[in-house]
Amino acid sequence: MRIGILTSGGDSPGLNAVIRGIVRKGIRSHGSSFVGIRDGWRGLLEDDVFEMSMLDVRGLSGRGGTILGTSRTHPYEDGGPARMREVMAAHDIDAIVAIGGEGTLSGASRLVEEEGLNIVGVPKTIDNDLDNTDYTFGFDTAQSIATEAIDRLRTTAESHHRCMVIEVMGRNVGWIALHSGMAGGAHAILMPEFPVSMDQIGQWVTSARDRGRAPIVVVAEGFVPEGLDEQIADRGLDSRGRARLGGIANYLAPLIEETTGIETRATILGHLQRGGSPTAYDRVLSTRLGMAAADLAHDEQWGKMASLKGTDIVAVEMASAVDSLKTVPLDRWEEAQVLFG
Amino acid sequence: MRIGILTSGGDSPGLNAVIRGIVRKGIRSHGSSFVGIRDGWRGLLEDDVFEMSMLDVRGLSGRGGTILGTSRTHPYEDGGPARMREVMAAHDIDAIVAIGGEGTLSGASRLVEEEGLNIVGVPKTIDNDLDNTDYTFGFDTAQSIATEAIDRLRTTAESHHRCMVIEVMGRNVGWIALHSGMAGGAHAILMPEFPVSMDQIGQWVTSARDRGRAPIVVVAEGFVPEGLDEQIADRGLDSRGRARLGGIANYLAPLIEETTGIETRATILGHLQRGGSPTAYDRVLSTRLGMAAADLAHDEQWGKMASLKGTDIVAVEMASAVDSLKTVPLDRWEEAQVLFG
Amino acid sequence: MRIGILTSGGDSPGLNAVIRGIVRKGIRSHGSSFVGIRDGWRGLLEDDVFEMSMLDVRGLSGRGGTILGTSRTHPYEDGGPARMREVMAAHDIDAIVAIGGEGTLSGASRLVEEEGLNIVGVPKTIDNDLDNTDYTFGFDTAQSIATEAIDRLRTTAESHHRCMVIEVMGRNVGWIALHSGMAGGAHAILMPEFPVSMDQIGQWVTSARDRGRAPIVVVAEGFVPEGLDEQIADRGLDSRGRARLGGIANYLAPLIEETTGIETRATILGHLQRGGSPTAYDRVLSTRLGMAAADLAHDEQWGKMASLKGTDIVAVEMASAVDSLKTVPLDRWEEAQVLFG
Amino acid sequence: MRIGILTSGGDSPGLNAVIRGIVRKGIRSHGSSFVGIRDGWRGLLEDDVFEMSMLDVRGLSGRGGTILGTSRTHPYEDGGPARMREVMAAHDIDAIVAIGGEGTLSGASRLVEEEGLNIVGVPKTIDNDLDNTDYTFGFDTAQSIATEAIDRLRTTAESHHRCMVIEVMGRNVGWIALHSGMAGGAHAILMPEFPVSMDQIGQWVTSARDRGRAPIVVVAEGFVPEGLDEQIADRGLDSRGRARLGGIANYLAPLIEETTGIETRATILGHLQRGGSPTAYDRVLSTRLGMAAADLAHDEQWGKMASLKGTDIVAVEMASAVDSLKTVPLDRWEEAQVLFG
Repeated sequence: MRIGILTSGGDSPGLNAVIRGIVRKGIRSHGSSFVGIRDGWRGLLEDDVFEMSMLDVRGLSGRGGTILGTSRTHPYEDGGPARMREVMAAHDIDAIVAIGGEGTLSGASRLVEEEGLNIVGVPKTIDNDLDNTDYTFGFDTAQSIATEAIDRLRTTAESHHRCMVIEVMGRNVGWIALHSGMAGGAHAILMPEFPVSMDQIGQWVTSARDRGRAPIVVVAEGFVPEGLDEQIADRGLDSRGRARLGGIANYLAPLIEETTGIETRATILGHLQRGGSPTAYDRVLSTRLGMAAADLAHDEQWGKMASLKGTDIVAVEMASAVDSLKTVPLDRWEEAQVLFG
Repeated sequence: MRIGILTSGGDSPGLNAVIRGIVRKGIRSHGSSFVGIRDGWRGLLEDDVFEMSMLDVRGLSGRGGTILGTSRTHPYEDGGPARMREVMAAHDIDAIVAIGGEGTLSGASRLVEEEGLNIVGVPKTIDNDLDNTDYTFGFDTAQSIATEAIDRLRTTAESHHRCMVIEVMGRNVGWIALHSGMAGGAHAILMPEFPVSMDQIGQWVTSARDRGRAPIVVVAEGFVPEGLDEQIADRGLDSRGRARLGGIANYLAPLIEETTGIETRATILGHLQRGGSPTAYDRVLSTRLGMAAADLAHDEQWGKMASLKGTDIVAVEMASAVDSLKTVPLDRWEEAQVLFG
Repeated sequence: MRIGILTSGGDSPGLNAVIRGIVRKGIRSHGSSFVGIRDGWRGLLEDDVFEMSMLDVRGLSGRGGTILGTSRTHPYEDGGPARMREVMAAHDIDAIVAIGGEGTLSGASRLVEEEGLNIVGVPKTIDNDLDNTDYTFGFDTAQSIATEAIDRLRTTAESHHRCMVIEVMGRNVGWIALHSGMAGGAHAILMPEFPVSMDQIGQWVTSARDRGRAPIVVVAEGFVPEGLDEQIADRGLDSRGRARLGGIANYLAPLIEETTGIETRATILGHLQRGGSPTAYDRVLSTRLGMAAADLAHDEQWGKMASLKGTDIVAVEMASAVDSLKTVPLDRWEEAQVLFG
Repeated sequence: MRIGILTSGGDSPGLNAVIRGIVRKGIRSHGSSFVGIRDGWRGLLEDDVFEMSMLDVRGLSGRGGTILGTSRTHPYEDGGPARMREVMAAHDIDAIVAIGGEGTLSGASRLVEEEGLNIVGVPKTIDNDLDNTDYTFGFDTAQSIATEAIDRLRTTAESHHRCMVIEVMGRNVGWIALHSGMAGGAHAILMPEFPVSMDQIGQWVTSARDRGRAPIVVVAEGFVPEGLDEQIADRGLDSRGRARLGGIANYLAPLIEETTGIETRATILGHLQRGGSPTAYDRVLSTRLGMAAADLAHDEQWGKMASLKGTDIVAVEMASAVDSLKTVPLDRWEEAQVLFG
């Protein structure tokens, strides 16, 4: 079987390890051959592909980014399914492994259902918001970088008796905020799932200060303080717009300073969280997901993706990953609050 | 409820975060009070304890080691259960949270069964060999440190066209070797569960060299090459003895050099793997396990321990953790071999 | 001799190691005793001091921040010299070691000259802009963090075929930008000392892209593109104001995208660069500077500070550190340009 | 001018950055062309060379090892100078940049003096023992790795109330031990330059323990305790032999345990110290040294090498680097002892 591989959407540490896993497993166990597709669906629509050998994936497990490149091109743009079929035929590509997030997986699922294309998937989201998989690769690296940043910022905060607001990724869910906040010893963790008021935030900050601590507030980029939705919405900005205009941390910091009287500074980690060498955890998870995807393709399990359940990699429907957003559940929020203030 | 906490056996990154989780959850949610017991069972037998407050656990999530100290004192030494009851009575201690490995958990389980002591547990093993829990805290930090070491050693190996043998922890199981070897791109991973011959090792090493790589061999300390058990046993050494006398890596390196003709060097990571600040993953896991243990004590679930299953922390019998050794299963070994040679 | 120690101005990794060096050297070699002064000159003016022993400085070499706290209080505020003399007399303080930057050193120098106070100094600037010392502690940590950030951002840039603009500290000088840019393999480094036009920047970026690279631009916070001074000045902002309003990187990124047609993203490292555990280099330098300062006080070298020259720590006039700004010299700028484009 | 580049002897972090600096400076400023010589003098004697372009050095600043490979082949082996001339003529090589340590620099110096070959040098020693240069590249990375290891081992030592002996590189000099020991807060630092007795070591260890610390002893591999030279010499081992047979740390640990009664463990860092990505400091230093070497070749400064003096890169005689060993001076030893016990 001849298999094309593409990576689509924002990059995530571990993409290269997934690619390595697919290629090594496919060649060694199934005698598959591989074609690299450049920049996600764009490469498939514009016939920008290349032959891949074992040599292309050597030494990849620790490398950040994706050697295939990525883009946000949608699979139904520019000719869509018909064009894909042409390019696949021209290169004798029997099947595609699509590594991507919500958009990629729903698009791929539709291509399988409606167009009968041979596609299997690997879920990718640094925010950890895809459903039907315990964790996604890249998330552990992101939480590690965020935790290390909190460790660093704490010493400055303590020396200057300041409050620090640290904005981490998480447009719709608070997983990175929750984990890095717990790991870094935050005094408040703010997530899109659980809007709290400025009063509540001020109370946590003041309580930490009163116990002699430099208050650390970790906020997911998609959080909006209770009661301020309209004010923020009035600016006509979606969460991406807010991020571009400075981030919710820059919005919160002066409000906290005003509410509590404590000098407050904001730091936005941004792209730092998705770059660079993946953690050991993410490298192992990525390699295993890649290998499982090679098996899925070999077994013609079109429409399926490789998913982590406990310590196992299992096959689930791609569509099931996007059925609903995997949000932080209430019990994890309650658990976290034990550490607040 | 007044609860004593002890940490027993070899230290593991995350111990302090477990302690923090217990104390904060116990005080905040259940109104418990806490007593720190110094150096594991020794402190309980020798009445070496101190009052613990929230202040004692502040800023602990990222700190390696254990603020309680640890020892290998056995709970049935020096007076045993009777003496424990005295000390507990003297300090009004109603229950114990015991954080420890195989010896501690079986001892604690017996103290509950036979003596009716009020004990709950948190499983601790850096080798990840305890049963009935997906992972244990400290393991992720160990695999991270080992992976980083492999990354470093690779560049030296490549510059000098050498083979590198890296010995990691794992007396009876190969989990750290398996994960760090996969993450670091090893060309052979050697684990106690799967003895292979020197010929097979030589073949993997030669094959990697022939493809232009500097061969990387990751070996768990408890591995013995097939057919050499007797030769090693003849020295009258158990695995601990071998480690002390230089480690299996020092034994393998000259044999590999002889078999393959490739200059070979050994590095033993040793204590480096268990020291220092825990990873974000381990900090979150530890904190959650600690909180769950505080709940177990509050709910008088004597004989139970907090255990990771998927993304949940659940209660299982302490005894079940030591029923059998959690070894690397065959499918993980087959998966790994796809990366060899 | 009884010596007070204070840390003043922005924190810098290594402050605690300086304090440790002073106290250990003073007690061990000279039999001095020590008083910690809280939050810089504020503590001296408000009588907020405490007795320091060897115990207070144990384990400090690797800890970020300053255990003494810091503030931007000016020595001539709130009573000034007269008040200081009172507090010093009240606590039998014979001399002060002042660890601080431009403001602190010029203030301290004036207090020695005009008021006859017994003060010696240790120069502190994370930007490395103090004169008459090769490097200052904290600078190496800052350049390390910035370099690691560039390493991380590069993989994302490459995967997405983007240009990345990374803003590092350096209000008046480009030392951190120069070093982290050289270390991280930047395609353009922008420093306050060497204004270049948007056209030149666009040329470097385009040239890097044309060679298949993802262009990396490192910019010191104080840089202003040639010809745009007025436009930026029109906003009535000094460099601090600009930083607060989003930073020069946020200003440059859309201009670069417009000029070159390459998608461009900005990251501002901000406080991350000054927090956390110092590098080995900074710990050694700090410890030695602290020891030398203890000797200076013992030798009654009022008005002098400890300074790095080559591999030696020597005594120079505090005033000489602030005579002029230590800017990046022309030959270093020419050297760097060899790496551009 | 057409210039060959070779790297010789043990690898050192920064070698690739030196190579990048030479090639970029040579091509951009002088229009030189470059030939890579594989595995040090071996490549020159066996005609194993390749054309180098800017493409070959892209992205190298952060990569450990050397893309040219290295060996311990001596320049006067296998045909020596005559053979070199042949190979140089065959490839139109006008000059050589030799990056190497004591052996390489004295060999190269002799080739210039006696044979009239056109060679310039860059000093390389991870031990920092070459004369007439403040620091050599790779040393900062080694001291960083050693310091991080000490940080990690300390927490384990404290939890178990143990003494830790950490062996770092330094066959003839104690620079890495001195710096990592100061940075890591060691209670004793043992260097070849300053033999001390087991009694003295025991005293430092006991004193640290008595103050409640877990004693940390950092020892350079070439250290021999006072009075034990003969005992060690009796085994007929030079320092390299000792390292291979387990290292001085393994020899000291049981002696310390016996002398003090404190449980003691040994860790040997070994090759970990010379592998992997260089620190920012080493990357900048390496890049600058490489650029300066390109200038030296262009200026036909045969017999000269690039050397760090303060913040400048200057030209000195290659021969002067090996005139005498750069040992740790007495005042640095006295300074360090302030931190002992």
